Amino acid sequence: MADDWGQLVELVREGSHMIIVLKPGTRDADIEDVCRRIEALGLRAHVSRGEQRTIIGAIGDDRFKMRLQALEALECVESMVPILQPFKLASREVHPADTVVQVDGVLIGGTRLAVMAGPCSVESLEQLQTVAEGVKAGGAHILRGGAFKPRTSPYAFQGLEEEGLQLLAEARKRTGLPIVTEVLGPDKVELVAEYADIVQIGARNAQNFSLLKEVGQCGKPVLLKRGMATTIKEFLLSAEYVLAGGNANVMLCERGIRTFETTTRFTLDLNAVPVIKKLSHLPVIVDPSHGTGHWEYVGPMAKAGIACGADGLLIEVHHKPAEALSDGPQSLKPDKFARLMAELRVLAQALGRTL
Amino acid sequence: MADDWGQLVELVREGSHMIIVLKPGTRDADIEDVCRRIEALGLRAHVSRGEQRTIIGAIGDDRFKMRLQALEALECVESMVPILQPFKLASREVHPADTVVQVDGVLIGGTRLAVMAGPCSVESLEQLQTVAEGVKAGGAHILRGGAFKPRTSPYAFQGLEEEGLQLLAEARKRTGLPIVTEVLGPDKVELVAEYADIVQIGARNAQNFSLLKEVGQCGKPVLLKRGMATTIKEFLLSAEYVLAGGNANVMLCERGIRTFETTTRFTLDLNAVPVIKKLSHLPVIVDPSHGTGHWEYVGPMAKAGIACGADGLLIEVHHKPAEALSDGPQSLKPDKFARLMAELRVLAQALGRTL
Amino acid sequence: MADDWGQLVELVREGSHMIIVLKPGTRDADIEDVCRRIEALGLRAHVSRGEQRTIIGAIGDDRFKMRLQALEALECVESMVPILQPFKLASREVHPADTVVQVDGVLIGGTRLAVMAGPCSVESLEQLQTVAEGVKAGGAHILRGGAFKPRTSPYAFQGLEEEGLQLLAEARKRTGLPIVTEVLGPDKVELVAEYADIVQIGARNAQNFSLLKEVGQCGKPVLLKRGMATTIKEFLLSAEYVLAGGNANVMLCERGIRTFETTTRFTLDLNAVPVIKKLSHLPVIVDPSHGTGHWEYVGPMAKAGIACGADGLLIEVHHKPAEALSDGPQSLKPDKFARLMAELRVLAQALGRTL
Amino acid sequence: MADDWGQLVELVREGSHMIIVLKPGTRDADIEDVCRRIEALGLRAHVSRGEQRTIIGAIGDDRFKMRLQALEALECVESMVPILQPFKLASREVHPADTVVQVDGVLIGGTRLAVMAGPCSVESLEQLQTVAEGVKAGGAHILRGGAFKPRTSPYAFQGLEEEGLQLLAEARKRTGLPIVTEVLGPDKVELVAEYADIVQIGARNAQNFSLLKEVGQCGKPVLLKRGMATTIKEFLLSAEYVLAGGNANVMLCERGIRTFETTTRFTLDLNAVPVIKKLSHLPVIVDPSHGTGHWEYVGPMAKAGIACGADGLLIEVHHKPAEALSDGPQSLKPDKFARLMAELRVLAQALGRTL
Repeated sequence: MADDWGQLVELVREGSHMIIVLKPGTRDADIEDVCRRIEALGLRAHVSRGEQRTIIGAIGDDRFKMRLQALEALECVESMVPILQPFKLASREVHPADTVVQVDGVLIGGTRLAVMAGPCSVESLEQLQTVAEGVKAGGAHILRGGAFKPRTSPYAFQGLEEEGLQLLAEARKRTGLPIVTEVLGPDKVELVAEYADIVQIGARNAQNFSLLKEVGQCGKPVLLKRGMATTIKEFLLSAEYVLAGGNANVMLCERGIRTFETTTRFTLDLNAVPVIKKLSHLPVIVDPSHGTGHWEYVGPMAKAGIACGADGLLIEVHHKPAEALSDGPQSLKPDKFARLMAELRVLAQALGRTL
Repeated sequence: MADDWGQLVELVREGSHMIIVLKPGTRDADIEDVCRRIEALGLRAHVSRGEQRTIIGAIGDDRFKMRLQALEALECVESMVPILQPFKLASREVHPADTVVQVDGVLIGGTRLAVMAGPCSVESLEQLQTVAEGVKAGGAHILRGGAFKPRTSPYAFQGLEEEGLQLLAEARKRTGLPIVTEVLGPDKVELVAEYADIVQIGARNAQNFSLLKEVGQCGKPVLLKRGMATTIKEFLLSAEYVLAGGNANVMLCERGIRTFETTTRFTLDLNAVPVIKKLSHLPVIVDPSHGTGHWEYVGPMAKAGIACGADGLLIEVHHKPAEALSDGPQSLKPDKFARLMAELRVLAQALGRTL
Repeated sequence: MADDWGQLVELVREGSHMIIVLKPGTRDADIEDVCRRIEALGLRAHVSRGEQRTIIGAIGDDRFKMRLQALEALECVESMVPILQPFKLASREVHPADTVVQVDGVLIGGTRLAVMAGPCSVESLEQLQTVAEGVKAGGAHILRGGAFKPRTSPYAFQGLEEEGLQLLAEARKRTGLPIVTEVLGPDKVELVAEYADIVQIGARNAQNFSLLKEVGQCGKPVLLKRGMATTIKEFLLSAEYVLAGGNANVMLCERGIRTFETTTRFTLDLNAVPVIKKLSHLPVIVDPSHGTGHWEYVGPMAKAGIACGADGLLIEVHHKPAEALSDGPQSLKPDKFARLMAELRVLAQALGRTL
Repeated sequence: MADDWGQLVELVREGSHMIIVLKPGTRDADIEDVCRRIEALGLRAHVSRGEQRTIIGAIGDDRFKMRLQALEALECVESMVPILQPFKLASREVHPADTVVQVDGVLIGGTRLAVMAGPCSVESLEQLQTVAEGVKAGGAHILRGGAFKPRTSPYAFQGLEEEGLQLLAEARKRTGLPIVTEVLGPDKVELVAEYADIVQIGARNAQNFSLLKEVGQCGKPVLLKRGMATTIKEFLLSAEYVLAGGNANVMLCERGIRTFETTTRFTLDLNAVPVIKKLSHLPVIVDPSHGTGHWEYVGPMAKAGIACGADGLLIEVHHKPAEALSDGPQSLKPDKFARLMAELRVLAQALGRTL
């Protein structure tokens, strides 16, 4: 698939309106014939020869797209994919198979569910280490923790910054868990990518296009959170920025949208899970901690997230929630986290997955 | 509990700020002593003697509530419940145990999940009968079907009205399934209650207080749907209208709220399930058909609804969705419904419930 | 226009897809020719002869609508109106001229702005009379006051009911101001219409279709409030229910929608004013009192409402807001109301209107 | 005021809970006395001596704030300002007088209204020059134009970047109009600030805290747009980031929020104007072009914005909207813009302002 992906990126970037997939082993003469026919319709043909097969993009005026359909009748054409959705690389239309992101041995997007857990903010070595061991004991696969914190108020704790990244690296060394942590600005992408196994883009930066372009080239998998007023289609277009930058390892995270309801901090929109699964091949992670804002709702909504098809969860855990520097009310204690994991394991099995 | 419920309704209606529950067997002299103390604080005492125990409501100026707390020290007082939430009869504070509604042998609100299924609109005897047999075969417990339809446009099909109710009664006779159907106006409550086993209040009438008052006295269990802009607290206050009318058999149905997202017809707000379960003792039903508006999302969201704690589901089923007079796109065919029920049975077991 | 209106109602009710307006003085032979041509396309023709002109509705399968267009070439055809919007009688397409509603000498929808003011609830003769005289002195044209109150909580003051209507009638007698008051259920429409000059449908009943059907036949002008989650198109469809019932005197009232913002009680959506003015011929009233929920925002938003094209305002006034039984925080005192009216008069002139 | 502002920034940054303003001419002995009393309460005193007066911040544990109130009794104390709102420098509580931002001779925030107009994107010298001359002729005070464009899709036109900035500078030279243009990332702030007279932060970056910190130090006035899901309080906290960076010249721009309504592109929330005016001293600009998304609603909503108290408008103008590379549907043609300006001039006068 690696080839095809590179080929697709190239064709879509060129602005193709139609992707024509040729059968394996198509001869050069036939390829040239297809190109001539495309050009006869007033369009340009862009040939991309991969190891497995050749793909041709037809580029030009949208109005001729319908007449292109006739090429499907040619012997050498396997399939034709009109590029209709505004998101292309993110769409299941272009890439039917589920993407599985691999992070240091952990697979995200396959049958096994992935759980990322840890404190909202990295506060100290002692705090991070305690929580990291707690979530590992509970069965988490990846350690989360914020070093750069996006805070609504400039007077709130802004994170330990690079020191926080170093503490995360230390925790990874001690526990063996890969780490996911957030980056706030394009100038810090290189720094964060140096430490992190997964680079997170937060909800408030879901349409920070400078940042999205930058993480498209950072070489590390990206966990992209949905903005609180981002439609699902806009969310996939934000993913498209990262994908178009050449980074195929994008995970989408539903973390709650803004609605009129105030008993929960946000409205975790689980409908997004099956909708994204239909429209896109990218893995979907659910964050019930930010989505609800209250620890007692984390368990029920984590279960619901798995039940409707999410590939993983992002859960905030703190050993002393009442003393947390951020988001204490929505953090689970390690023992509660472990009990939830036990329940999720039973649930996963009933759903034909593993945890 | 029946007594206590009646007593509570009476006390709350009187406007009590504090409910004082006396120990079983409290002597009259002690009851009078408590009353004297309440009155000495400038409040009125309302005594309600039930079969099991005596409850006293302290009525009057809210400012003295704090001084009342001292009465808890009396030997004869078992507990004191300050009435703080705007909803009272609906609150778990006043009624800690889960309410279980009984409909013709089906229990709703206990460990067994209840599934209500059927067509959006009753269209004909043949249609209703086919679908009713289909959902029964799939394992549904209750048959749904609309005879009076709330339609956005005055030019859309408005339902078969009383003829539809008669067809529902006929379908109940043939299948043995109890029926739930919607009532649109207070003048039709008596008619609908005559035929229906459960009277449904639709989302657009969630704050139609004339109608809520009327169903409070209809003698049949009520399925109350959340309005598309109704907060959870307002939703519980709407339930309070029915409860205060003397009807204790209320079920709350989450069916989607209005948000900016348009890939789904509404945003099914599953967060409401654990939130309501915390605040209230009433059973919660999830309607993934209206909540999402697309049949392919019904399965995932039905599973999610069960996973986060709902007591039942409301699912639209039609044997020919493409010909349905309303809501075809969100209706499952009977065979898809049966397969979903099979999956839900496995899931229920993993969650410690049965279906 | 009166004839045309009745004709239109009839044609739209019949389900016409195309309205063909003939030139004045068209001969019978030409009318019959048009009908034959319509029937030749597989459609039915419905002829409606008014005093001023004859209108023909083409009824039947939508697919033939395009071929109908050719009839526009006939000498006797003045115009053809395809019925595309789901709302028809409410649409400017069908009824290009602004509707002006006449209420006891007050015109609503013309160049003169109409101000309806008064207390949220009718509380007593003394209260209503004081406020009524205050708003009259300030220059209000119509007196508002609630006798039946839709309250979120069943324990809140529900209004004086018929006694309130009698007090309103008394206030009308003393001040000469026509009155607008709300009706909550279809069974009270006759009673309210007997007393009121304008019957109001509240936001929570914007999609209470039983009630809309009933006020369609009440013979009094209707002030229809937008629901807090009602889209503008749905709002016009709710108006369509009243219009289709034969009541042409409908005024639309924007009073705030539900959004995530909480510094205002609702989000008064003034964008709705120019949008409705484009789509519909019905007068638009703005209610800045309910829309914002705070008296200090009423003045600025009243001015803004007028500036973007509203035909009138609905403003809550109370002489002792701190003692009001409902909505005190959003009520202006009579002297503040009078000052606002003076400012609005200057503003109206700058906008080419009068007050 | 310049002194006081610097002093306030310093005190608030230090974390003061109470600002104690001393009378002009207070002697050193009295200043020391106040400090001793503050310290006796377990708090630190931070003295800031300005040219006009001395201000003392009391810093420390919030619990002692109430006891501080007693200091108000001292002869030398003029007033005491508890710092309660999460936003401080942005609040009217701390800074009662309206802020007037001065941009190259144009005053924004005083009685004179300021209009910023121009194309969405800078496309070419010819386009920009034509539009710039058009808006100048119409009476605009500031030229807007985007060189870096935040586009939902990575495949859409992303702006001319630095070349666009050069074209803006050229247009400024020719027309004499100051320019406002958007910056997308912290790494471009220096570049944009070099060319722009006002640096704009777009709606999608309203909570891009890296960028907000950077523009806090750019030395140019900042036009900060409200995010589409940003509450007014969060919006003021975003302004606080810029103010706390030492940049006092912040203008707030309402440009529409996300709601369920789809007839307009966003829901321009004019309620925000009087709400912000009450809570903050910063100038408020309204953008009816982005707020509604349709040119025919720009005029009515521009008028409404002015009527409810905005200090200025941001309006998109293009000489060939149908060929615009972005936002054509919401752009006015220069002649329509000129007519609107003429109407706004009459309106401004009626409101006691000038244009």
